Amino acid sequence: MRKLLPALIALVVTVPALADEGMWTFDNFPAATVREKYGATIDGAWLDRVRQSTIRLSNCTASFVSSSGLILTNHHCVESCLAGLSSRERSLVQAGFVSRGRDDEPRCTTQVADVLQAMENVTASVAAAVAGLGEAAANEARKKRLTELEQACEKASRLKCESVTLYQGGQYFLYKYRRYDDVRLVLAPEADIASFGGDPDNFQFPRWSLDFSLLRAYENGKPAKTPAFLPIRFNGPGAGELVFVSGHPGSTARLDTRAELESQRDIAWTNWLLRYSELRGRYIEFGKTGDAAARIVEEPLNSLENGIKVRRKLLDTLHENGLLESKTAAEQALRASVAGDAAFGDPWADIARATTIERELYLPYLYLEAAAGFNSATFRHARALVRAAAERAKPNAGRLREYTDAALPRLAQQVLAPIPVYPELENLTLSFSLERMREWLGPDHPVVRRLLARDSPDTLAARLVAGTRLGDPAVRQALWDGGAAAIAASSDPMIRLALEIDGPARAVRKQYEDEVEAPIDAAKEKIAAARFKAYGTNVYPDATFTLRLNFGTVAGWNENGREIAPITHLATAFERATGSEPFRIPDSWQKVRDTLDMQTPFCISTTSDIVGGNSGSPLIDAQGRIVGLMFDGNIHSISGNYWFDAEKNRATALHPAIIRVALEKVYRADAVLRELGVR
Amino acid sequence: MRKLLPALIALVVTVPALADEGMWTFDNFPAATVREKYGATIDGAWLDRVRQSTIRLSNCTASFVSSSGLILTNHHCVESCLAGLSSRERSLVQAGFVSRGRDDEPRCTTQVADVLQAMENVTASVAAAVAGLGEAAANEARKKRLTELEQACEKASRLKCESVTLYQGGQYFLYKYRRYDDVRLVLAPEADIASFGGDPDNFQFPRWSLDFSLLRAYENGKPAKTPAFLPIRFNGPGAGELVFVSGHPGSTARLDTRAELESQRDIAWTNWLLRYSELRGRYIEFGKTGDAAARIVEEPLNSLENGIKVRRKLLDTLHENGLLESKTAAEQALRASVAGDAAFGDPWADIARATTIERELYLPYLYLEAAAGFNSATFRHARALVRAAAERAKPNAGRLREYTDAALPRLAQQVLAPIPVYPELENLTLSFSLERMREWLGPDHPVVRRLLARDSPDTLAARLVAGTRLGDPAVRQALWDGGAAAIAASSDPMIRLALEIDGPARAVRKQYEDEVEAPIDAAKEKIAAARFKAYGTNVYPDATFTLRLNFGTVAGWNENGREIAPITHLATAFERATGSEPFRIPDSWQKVRDTLDMQTPFCISTTSDIVGGNSGSPLIDAQGRIVGLMFDGNIHSISGNYWFDAEKNRATALHPAIIRVALEKVYRADAVLRELGVR
Repeated sequence: MRKLLPALIALVVTVPALADEGMWTFDNFPAATVREKYGATIDGAWLDRVRQSTIRLSNCTASFVSSSGLILTNHHCVESCLAGLSSRERSLVQAGFVSRGRDDEPRCTTQVADVLQAMENVTASVAAAVAGLGEAAANEARKKRLTELEQACEKASRLKCESVTLYQGGQYFLYKYRRYDDVRLVLAPEADIASFGGDPDNFQFPRWSLDFSLLRAYENGKPAKTPAFLPIRFNGPGAGELVFVSGHPGSTARLDTRAELESQRDIAWTNWLLRYSELRGRYIEFGKTGDAAARIVEEPLNSLENGIKVRRKLLDTLHENGLLESKTAAEQALRASVAGDAAFGDPWADIARATTIERELYLPYLYLEAAAGFNSATFRHARALVRAAAERAKPNAGRLREYTDAALPRLAQQVLAPIPVYPELENLTLSFSLERMREWLGPDHPVVRRLLARDSPDTLAARLVAGTRLGDPAVRQALWDGGAAAIAASSDPMIRLALEIDGPARAVRKQYEDEVEAPIDAAKEKIAAARFKAYGTNVYPDATFTLRLNFGTVAGWNENGREIAPITHLATAFERATGSEPFRIPDSWQKVRDTLDMQTPFCISTTSDIVGGNSGSPLIDAQGRIVGLMFDGNIHSISGNYWFDAEKNRATALHPAIIRVALEKVYRADAVLRELGVR
Repeated sequence: MRKLLPALIALVVTVPALADEGMWTFDNFPAATVREKYGATIDGAWLDRVRQSTIRLSNCTASFVSSSGLILTNHHCVESCLAGLSSRERSLVQAGFVSRGRDDEPRCTTQVADVLQAMENVTASVAAAVAGLGEAAANEARKKRLTELEQACEKASRLKCESVTLYQGGQYFLYKYRRYDDVRLVLAPEADIASFGGDPDNFQFPRWSLDFSLLRAYENGKPAKTPAFLPIRFNGPGAGELVFVSGHPGSTARLDTRAELESQRDIAWTNWLLRYSELRGRYIEFGKTGDAAARIVEEPLNSLENGIKVRRKLLDTLHENGLLESKTAAEQALRASVAGDAAFGDPWADIARATTIERELYLPYLYLEAAAGFNSATFRHARALVRAAAERAKPNAGRLREYTDAALPRLAQQVLAPIPVYPELENLTLSFSLERMREWLGPDHPVVRRLLARDSPDTLAARLVAGTRLGDPAVRQALWDGGAAAIAASSDPMIRLALEIDGPARAVRKQYEDEVEAPIDAAKEKIAAARFKAYGTNVYPDATFTLRLNFGTVAGWNENGREIAPITHLATAFERATGSEPFRIPDSWQKVRDTLDMQTPFCISTTSDIVGGNSGSPLIDAQGRIVGLMFDGNIHSISGNYWFDAEKNRATALHPAIIRVALEKVYRADAVLRELGVR
């Protein structure tokens, strides 16, 4: 029950939270609290410079660390780029990469770097669009209005405009980004040291993973000029020091209702874990069939194992005593605050009702619309090509939201990028997913029956993978450019498959949107209004992979009576090495071992309130200098999806001193060091 | 909430259950209810003959169907025997087996056939042994007394004597069996038809799996004389007909408390499913590496997939609304019945406290004592050899219960049987389990650290598997015969490993027994006493893989508005076949297809209350004739672990008509047919 406090305080009382909790938007940062509690002044200039130096990658956060577009982020944020630049014969994930100069910075073809320029509150415009409509009609009208707002914004500002829903529908914003769509690789350590400890040590602390990499933003084929950047303070922070994290937490569910949490517990996480635990086993066994197989499966396996660990702990959290009870208490308090307002109704009951329908639609939605039955890179391309062709023929505001004019350039980049496709891996994932679709939808489901009437999952997958030409970027380009006519004329079996299931998939999506999403969104707008009325904006919105700032300190914690120190050192990494993956220190480090200061600080634990998406975020001191690179949290930090446990939730950063040692002594990246202002 | 009724009735009221629910012991069968409801007379002679004809196999139920020891059971009950008689080159699971005569009936080396001869109530003796003792001491004294009782019984009766705990500690019995330890294979269809539909159709109905096989009990090298047997009524039962199932339901948890159910939900099932879903993926991918691999992994994979489906549905059941609430209601009613008895205390709270400790001990117990970290056939042999040597040196009553004189002959049979061991499969399972042990106990757990300080799970597994000679039955025999001295002198790496972890494993077992098992058992005895006092014996005990009898009718059910007919026919199997596994009908059937009556009944749905362990049970009519062979239930039957849903819980039997067609037209087993009284 100790855990009950912080969540209740945040939700129920109107004074600022006592813990250093909160993923605050830059327009609502509690600078007064920071001044009061730590004596530090965070003014507008500080906020502007930090915002302009913080980057949203496609999957992570990063920051500019020089005026020539140099970007600091995590190795694991760059791992898919490294895999995309690899082949059966050579893995940059394993080998790492050190640029020999600016002519030797290969492009990460699916990466972008977005920098937030402005935020515009459009809540009133959205409210006007939905006024007086029923739930399903309001849901459609809302999406249409957001598309129109984005379109108008992009035309007026020449920036990337994205609508953002905050406080689960309490506010709508347009966020306007400067986008760099030419991002290149500068330096990445070998996986053995970058993810030293591997999956066993993931979400653990103490820790010794050199999880950093360097990228560079380009403009018109030249390094971008980025006058706003963050200098690095290589000696790092002291224990207890005030620190900030600027970044893009991906998503949290702290404002979700109890019914939604129960639905996640009973359906979503269990189902996900069951499917992906099996895929993990398939990947591992496949990787043992040869060196090439091991190379091509490494990055997908790492990503999968991270997802498994996260969801395993999320499920544990939902099983822990206290969380659901705290939800009930918070909901009762908020309900009491609107007692007497007959028009308010019972949005919590509305949501509970909708989650009952969600449970029924879950499996068909998952396998058909979310395409969990067709797990393959070429199928994902086929789906995007088929739908883009269909949607582009419609007026912009009438399209599925992921195919609007604002969304298409990014989609095209992803579909057309020359990323290698490995048929043996395609066979594995597609056969697996067809087999599970048959298991969960049943062999007599119409779609399953049609696809597998004369085939097994293995034979169907083999025929599709052997027949498709979508692994060739030129073929995808032709289909993208050719639009609906090219799609209709295509005999590619993956395109035909995507066309065949598109009807059933869109049907279940429509049902889901009308019967689950629409009533939930309507109910959440009501709850958000009640919350603002009761507590003002002394609450922060759930994470939405948009820019947030938090504050905390360098601190360990007490784990069942054992004090965990907040800073680790290089010596222990060598002591901990077994010589076998994932506890192997690469030759590059072994060779120079004698020249290294074993007392070099390695990792830092802080009280920062971060979640996935914050990976690569700069840890910043009160003077706006980088004093660490966030890359993980301890095991308790995963519960941060649902609530913030101030006693145990800790974030994990790489210490700048070990980055300097790596650049100076191991990778001898002198030009980079000069760019970072060293010597 | 519809589901609430049956469970509440069984637990709360004192009239017989309205539904045909209950796994009744033969000494407490509700014959009066059957007479009243169905007009059938089940007298002592009927019960005795059925009991003497019903067989407990090591893993299933079966029945005698001739006076020469012929045994009818399921194919899936014989699958491990078929795998044991197979090799890399030839799989009897795939090929099936048809004996050419009594000289051609190979032995199932780990199988036994037990027939219950008598039951003796020893509750008073056990109560006397524990009187006045604290919980942990009582737990030890109880086990000691049960061992003494078994020992005395075996000496006096020359039968196999096993103690049985009924009503979760409400009653203790000695069950006395006639044991046949020479069981041989007579006939098994090919897997393609025996498990037609495979995992997708498992626990589904309508159904078309020819899940039968024939064994024979031998005595002194000759077919056993078994005057008590059940004749087969090949035309089968009609819809609505009264039917009985005599068999050995494995285990149920219907009397478990809410705290125990929550513990299963949060810890046991989720953890099991996570681990074994991954192993499923590893098995499947391994099976694709070649024909030999596919053959040797088939049986373990089938068994695993069955376990996954069961636990997946158990977890769903625990998530369903109503079950936990019905527990609370039943517990409150029982608690009210003992109100005012100060000495009674609060056994439900005692159990809840113990489950909190159980959650903490779960992982070390699982990985060390339950050896989930050392998943390998040769490790299991090593563990048995090491512990048997240590325990045999102690007085019988002081041993771990699985090593008493009563238990040793069966253990020896399992350890010494010449079952093939495949090093490639050993490598897979051992590496997998070592890797998961490192994940869940953490790389810094002392045992993990010691084993993996310089090794990866792969390299350690490879070294152990390459080094051990325990795959050779002669080596195991020598170590078994040599006892403690031979074990101490052995340098076999698997034996050394088993010795190395034995201390930590026994320590966590002891802690578990004292702090979890002891208080739970003490609390359950109290609850059982209260239940008897309130409701008499109008309740049935939870399943314990001991002989039970139930009654029901041939009936389908209504699945979301769709009526499911209770009998399927051969024609649909051919329509449903895709030509690909697991929907492939083998050549033996295709060849004679034109000679078969397509209207032959195939499977039957009944309201019988059965669970795993009942597989292979005879479905019996009121005249004591076999009218079906139980092999499964519908998906709702899995919930039967927790409660009986009379509306939807259905058992699935093979119709005798399809067995006759198989024997006559396909396998041409004329001698067997004559033995069954045909022509």
